Order: sequence, then structure tokens, then C-alpha cells
Amino acid sequence: MKKSIFYHAGCPVCLSAEQEIISLIGASNVEIVHLGEDATRIGEAENAGIKSVPALLTPNGNMLHINYGASIADVKG
Amino acid sequence: MKKSIFYHAGCPVCLSAEQEIISLIGASNVEIVHLGEDATRIGEAENAGIKSVPALLTPNGNMLHINYGASIADVKG
Repeated sequence: MKKSIFYHAGCPVCLSAEQEIISLIGASNVEIVHLGEDATRIGEAENAGIKSVPALLTPNGNMLHINYGASIADVKG
Repeated sequence: MKKSIFYHAGCPVCLSAEQEIISLIGASNVEIVHLGEDATRIGEAENAGIKSVPALLTPNGNMLHINYGASIADVKG
């Protein structure tokens, strides 16, 4: 299965969601991307439809926004 | 593994998220509850922290609100 990508920014809501997602779908099935530490990935995430973090981009290309930690505008500062 | 519970209310956002969740974690690992059709489950969902649908209650007891279809107040009508 193609990997999902979990985008976050280190916020408490993000880290809680990360643990749940890893628990649900398995660490080997998801790439974890910290947009606060790797701003070069923000463009790709925006192209895939991200509006806030944390969010999970599924192998089908759908962006699932999970709870609400921060907007992408906030992440970009 | 204890099952997750996916709560929804039949909205388009709900149905799209449902397909993604089933694809990610497997239909056998998640119970699907339509709160619009089974209002007797709303109390349990509220006790578990649901604020909007669709939402996934994980085996750890955390409620993951996925995208946004409708508030629980709207579901209750």
C-alpha cells in the first residue's frame, strides 16, 4: 500500500493525533512530516489541500484534517 | 485490537471520510454508526467527546474529528 503522509507542526494536538494514527494504521504505513521543522514540504502539502495541522494525506490523495492544532498560515508564520 | 467507532450523519464529507477510514484501517476494525439514523447512540458519542461529524473514536478513547461535515447540534436537529 502506498504510504499516507501525516503533516503536523509539533503542537500538542498534533502529537496526540500522531500517536493515534500510528496506532491505527501502523508506523510503517505513514510518513511523518513536521512542517515547522521542514518548511520545504509546505508547498506540497498546500497543493494536496492542507488547511490546518494535524492532517493526514491518504494514499487516495484525500486530505483528512484531524482535530485542529493550527492553521497553515500560523505554521508559515 | 479493540474496534474504533466511526460516527457520521450521512453527509457527503462523512461518506468520503468513511471510505478513507475503512481503506486505512480495514472494515473489520471499525464500527460505523449513523447518528442521524440511530439517535440512541448520540449520548454515548457525546460522552466520548464528539463535537462534530464525521469523527473516529479510537480504541484508546480519543475522539478524532475528521474534516467537518456538521455539528452534533445540527445532527440532533
